[in-house]
Amino acid sequence: MNSSPIGVFDSGLGGLTAVKRLAQLLPHEEIVYLGDTGRVPYGSRSRETIIKYAREDARFLLSHSIKAMIVACNTVSSSALDVIAPEIAVPVFGVVEPPSARAAALTKNGKIGVIGTAATVRSGAYAAAIARIDAKLTVTSAACPLFVPLVENGRVSADDIAVTTIARDYLQPVIDSGADTVILGCTHYPLLAGAIALVLGEGVTLVDSGAVTAEFVAERLRSADLLTDRAKPGRRRYFVTDSAEDFAAQASRFLEADISGTVEQITLG
Amino acid sequence: MNSSPIGVFDSGLGGLTAVKRLAQLLPHEEIVYLGDTGRVPYGSRSRETIIKYAREDARFLLSHSIKAMIVACNTVSSSALDVIAPEIAVPVFGVVEPPSARAAALTKNGKIGVIGTAATVRSGAYAAAIARIDAKLTVTSAACPLFVPLVENGRVSADDIAVTTIARDYLQPVIDSGADTVILGCTHYPLLAGAIALVLGEGVTLVDSGAVTAEFVAERLRSADLLTDRAKPGRRRYFVTDSAEDFAAQASRFLEADISGTVEQITLG
Repeated sequence: MNSSPIGVFDSGLGGLTAVKRLAQLLPHEEIVYLGDTGRVPYGSRSRETIIKYAREDARFLLSHSIKAMIVACNTVSSSALDVIAPEIAVPVFGVVEPPSARAAALTKNGKIGVIGTAATVRSGAYAAAIARIDAKLTVTSAACPLFVPLVENGRVSADDIAVTTIARDYLQPVIDSGADTVILGCTHYPLLAGAIALVLGEGVTLVDSGAVTAEFVAERLRSADLLTDRAKPGRRRYFVTDSAEDFAAQASRFLEADISGTVEQITLG
Repeated sequence: MNSSPIGVFDSGLGGLTAVKRLAQLLPHEEIVYLGDTGRVPYGSRSRETIIKYAREDARFLLSHSIKAMIVACNTVSSSALDVIAPEIAVPVFGVVEPPSARAAALTKNGKIGVIGTAATVRSGAYAAAIARIDAKLTVTSAACPLFVPLVENGRVSADDIAVTTIARDYLQPVIDSGADTVILGCTHYPLLAGAIALVLGEGVTLVDSGAVTAEFVAERLRSADLLTDRAKPGRRRYFVTDSAEDFAAQASRFLEADISGTVEQITLG
């Protein structure tokens, strides 16, 4: 039994898709979230800069005596986790392995698609994780660099021709591959799931990397006896590096809940 | 006569549209450019964060013994210049006043449009500057938050339905206003000039804020006898806060010249 909080960080808002699922599964757990909104997005930056920012994010969460850390940012999980994980004294979970295992279990034709930021795709982390599970699976990746700005600007409708045109351009290699299972390898992408599903067509299963990772972490903490025995709902705290008000206003689209009053602005770096 | 360099900063690449014009007009001047590519974009951030970043940018340029500074970022010019300008011991030029004066001189029907980032439009700086020139002019502003990501991802063609759909949505209030002159109030937007002109229709004049500011600064330095008497071409140095290689590769689209080998990565903050 352990009543310390679970720490979660992301470059911005996207990691809230993991928080939402985690809070559903483990309502009694305390969660400390950090969104580096003053430096979002990470996905277009160099690996060196991503490592620097991720290290600062992790140190901040560790200062809150967390019992486990979720790196709810696919860019960091795929580009920097190998470097920062050994520096962290609590169990660390990225958002690459759990959805890779889920996709490998779900695919029927052995063809998996992965979509993410430029940095995530450049890293090859998903293809490597899937190959470790089953080398016979084939993986087709596509970078979708405009998806995060579209989500951050609330432009997500499947009826929006700008969204579907951009999605079609990005997803064509995945469609051509015949993949029957596609990993949303960026925690922002679930908000575009309708448009992505429309463009990919029927019969394709989408895997939400943030939600699947939350499920994986809940199971691991339970089996390691690291869950709290608290009877009351766990406290949620949100820290950001830009305006707390702006974050609270935007977060409601991800969490479908009002978190104003629980967000605090801090400085990193 | 003064042979010190001219300093120019922007959140990222956009300020290069001002550098390009400045270098054409003043080929013998040294130019030191800072692009805060590790924290771009600024336009979606809070005013407090924009001021913090701009102050760090200005301090870096001052450490290079510059004789004048161009704040080639409309977001900073409109949201933070009133705070940071008094802290800077050399002449400082933003990208709001010169294009406002140019638009006021060009308009025939007295109706001016201004497009920019969310922060620029929220500031009301252009409308205020234009009102100071002539209170009878009317100004219609529109925020275009996806234009910077589109440019940074090379998605700028007037034949691209995603670009023109987004542009049409953003520009509709400006079209409805009947403006005959539109200020491109963001140094990224000249790369979208073709699509913007197509959507606005014939008979609308576009004012490039970076280029017009470069022309204004060249004239002011000349009249104050602050230009160099160097006979050789002036040195150009570029500093960035993310990968130098990535910046050099992207900069060619703005400068139409190869600057690899003259870009250096530094740390701010």
